[in-house]
Amino acid sequence: MSNHAFMPDSYSILIKNANYLPVRKNGKRACVVKDASILIENGVIREISKSPFRQKSTKGEKIDAKDSLVLPGLVNAHTHLPETLERGVCDDATLDDWLWNHIWVMESRMGKKEAYAGAMLGCVEMIKCGTTSFIDQFYYAEELFDAVNKSGLRALLCPSVFDNCVESKTIERAFERAKEVISEKQGKSRRINWGIGPHAPYTVEKDMLLRIAEFADERNLPVHIHLQESLWEMEKAKKEFGMSPIKYLEKIGFFSDKNHQNKRKILGAHCVFVDNEDMEIMRKNELSVLHNPRCNLKLANGIAPVSDMLEKGINVAIGTDGCASNNNLFILEDLLIATILQKYLKSDPRVMPIEEAIELATINGARAIGLENEIGCIEEGKKADVIIVDMKGAHANPKHNILSNLIYASSSHDVNTTIVDGKILMHERKLRELDEQKVIDMARKASEVLLGKKDVR
Amino acid sequence: MSNHAFMPDSYSILIKNANYLPVRKNGKRACVVKDASILIENGVIREISKSPFRQKSTKGEKIDAKDSLVLPGLVNAHTHLPETLERGVCDDATLDDWLWNHIWVMESRMGKKEAYAGAMLGCVEMIKCGTTSFIDQFYYAEELFDAVNKSGLRALLCPSVFDNCVESKTIERAFERAKEVISEKQGKSRRINWGIGPHAPYTVEKDMLLRIAEFADERNLPVHIHLQESLWEMEKAKKEFGMSPIKYLEKIGFFSDKNHQNKRKILGAHCVFVDNEDMEIMRKNELSVLHNPRCNLKLANGIAPVSDMLEKGINVAIGTDGCASNNNLFILEDLLIATILQKYLKSDPRVMPIEEAIELATINGARAIGLENEIGCIEEGKKADVIIVDMKGAHANPKHNILSNLIYASSSHDVNTTIVDGKILMHERKLRELDEQKVIDMARKASEVLLGKKDVR
Repeated sequence: MSNHAFMPDSYSILIKNANYLPVRKNGKRACVVKDASILIENGVIREISKSPFRQKSTKGEKIDAKDSLVLPGLVNAHTHLPETLERGVCDDATLDDWLWNHIWVMESRMGKKEAYAGAMLGCVEMIKCGTTSFIDQFYYAEELFDAVNKSGLRALLCPSVFDNCVESKTIERAFERAKEVISEKQGKSRRINWGIGPHAPYTVEKDMLLRIAEFADERNLPVHIHLQESLWEMEKAKKEFGMSPIKYLEKIGFFSDKNHQNKRKILGAHCVFVDNEDMEIMRKNELSVLHNPRCNLKLANGIAPVSDMLEKGINVAIGTDGCASNNNLFILEDLLIATILQKYLKSDPRVMPIEEAIELATINGARAIGLENEIGCIEEGKKADVIIVDMKGAHANPKHNILSNLIYASSSHDVNTTIVDGKILMHERKLRELDEQKVIDMARKASEVLLGKKDVR
Repeated sequence: MSNHAFMPDSYSILIKNANYLPVRKNGKRACVVKDASILIENGVIREISKSPFRQKSTKGEKIDAKDSLVLPGLVNAHTHLPETLERGVCDDATLDDWLWNHIWVMESRMGKKEAYAGAMLGCVEMIKCGTTSFIDQFYYAEELFDAVNKSGLRALLCPSVFDNCVESKTIERAFERAKEVISEKQGKSRRINWGIGPHAPYTVEKDMLLRIAEFADERNLPVHIHLQESLWEMEKAKKEFGMSPIKYLEKIGFFSDKNHQNKRKILGAHCVFVDNEDMEIMRKNELSVLHNPRCNLKLANGIAPVSDMLEKGINVAIGTDGCASNNNLFILEDLLIATILQKYLKSDPRVMPIEEAIELATINGARAIGLENEIGCIEEGKKADVIIVDMKGAHANPKHNILSNLIYASSSHDVNTTIVDGKILMHERKLRELDEQKVIDMARKASEVLLGKKDVR
């Protein structure tokens, strides 16, 4: 942070009167800094100054962040974006009923157009709740690319590979399609990175898992896989593999490349039922956990031992999962649930304090997405993914501890401004790049197609 | 519901294009009704009609509820209102540390003026999150009465009786003070009812518990008491009483009057650690449970077996608890947490479906407050405590199931309009009767007094 006032040029955003949470400063945990000015230029946090801004008129945009909290943009580390179309279609149901009688029936009718519409609705929702980056696993990767590219968000897209990808029908074709899209689109947007998503060890067989992992090696992609989410899955693995899915993956050589030279970058969604041996494998192999606390409760699975994982040095990021099961994409609310669940699980209210909780949605998410040196904290030189949370409301006062008011008392709706890659996507709760109502209307129509009302198309 | 259009007169509110959840109709569970008009007159829901409204000009106020959901006002069944001043002062701490080093130190400095300011802040927050009624346990009951009276909200105020009432110092004086205020204020506001709040069996001795209960008999008051919240409390009871607090209360004759003729109306806050015998006592004595799911997790206590209680026919309402521990007064968010916790607890996603969950915050809360025939559902002749929740946002679309979108995807901030006793307290998120900023400023100053900055007064 410099001590002299800076001079913004054109293409700049100046955030004045900012109380901001750096999250990290020079690699160390940092607490809230008061009354600073933050200058964003050409997509980067150029300068942070404690001095008041002295320029009377500049070409750039000025935002007064008085009575607000400025944060790194939130990361939603696990979702399936087009599932927004299935929001509320089936709740309070068993997994079997939900999948067979509702979700797969609807998804069997999903075409490219519907996937795009659902993804756009998800992008709007994320911008509105202060999510600037997300990690997705779905098919129709080309349509997801188009939606995210248009939205202005940052993403790690991981095309799903399993039998239930409606776009491709068979797992073999799903893999081919994933390879095609990745080959075509990798490097085409500076905001969109690629990974690959073998669905789970219980849906993807050993040979295919290893083929996918080897493709990931060639392209230097992270591998995004569902792991140890339900008791049903654990019992199936015990029967088929004689061990937990994570132990099985280690055994078949999924965590390192062919020559055992390099660790693969593995992202494990859920990881609810993990024992100490699983956690040791996760730690050793630097697996990132994509924790979905709300979804895990709603589907009656359980509570992942996140505080244990963090204590062992495992990177844990937070995700909502898709809206077919979790119903919205509000990361702040999930963060609240995550922290109070760990207190309950360990019978200790000191577990997962505020400063640790906020890392799940910022720097830990950045690490999972592979951008820990570029996003996830507010520091000079980092990419300008920044949000401003309004702290004016009754529920955010008095301000004995502004971070406590953020985690324990605020809401996704308090996010006032969302900036990604130096571009303002929302300000004063209004979208700048997208027409919210048009996107909602498009998504409604698409969801009717999924319900089988074919004449809507 | 009538089938002809009605004619509003002056003093009326007409809600047009309403999708509304009656909750109950003729005593039975009722689902969402679409496209109705609701006429409110003189504090009462006068008429509900499916016909479009035909009058072109009326003297009353018209609200278009298109793309919204109209609900009975929410009930917050357990809070300590002036604790808003202590929001965020101490989180992630053990109960001992929290109480002795923070909360009681701050509360020792609380005077009438501060209690009033904190209560006003709480009232503002409740109006903004769609809470129209609440049940409180605190001291400074006269100041709470004044705040609630001014706010326009409905309340059951239960003055606390125990040694830690800063207003009175000793339990004897706290009881005297409670009796004084109740005698003076009972019947003075049609929106404010009275109960009495012996703190807990571990803080109030047998003789005093029975004296309080007998005073409640005389005045026909409900008794609001903390029960079986923590393991610490359970162990203490086992040591001192040889049994659980609920069994002890039954043994000492707390649940019925002296002559065992009439059941007392007991409201038990928390009830986390209850076994089948406790539940049988609760059911038999028609105790209402005031469930606080978020606070119970945050303080690392546990999860109350709410679905078991409901199955046994026990009335369970939902509360936030005070903001010193829970940090905000958002009932909708707590309802989400309540339902997903029960699914987790019973390992079954079908447990506590949406229709049952919403009852906790409406009709069950009304029953706890003693107004089950007057509020808690939208039906002709009921008191007009009504809220309108905006369903226009991306996160509330598409609308496969509007109640699912309410419980699983919406937020307290989506509440657009709050009507209590036929009066609009908030519309389009703007307060009508109170100046939000003035209340926040007053509460900020009061909280500084509590921190020991004495010159602020």
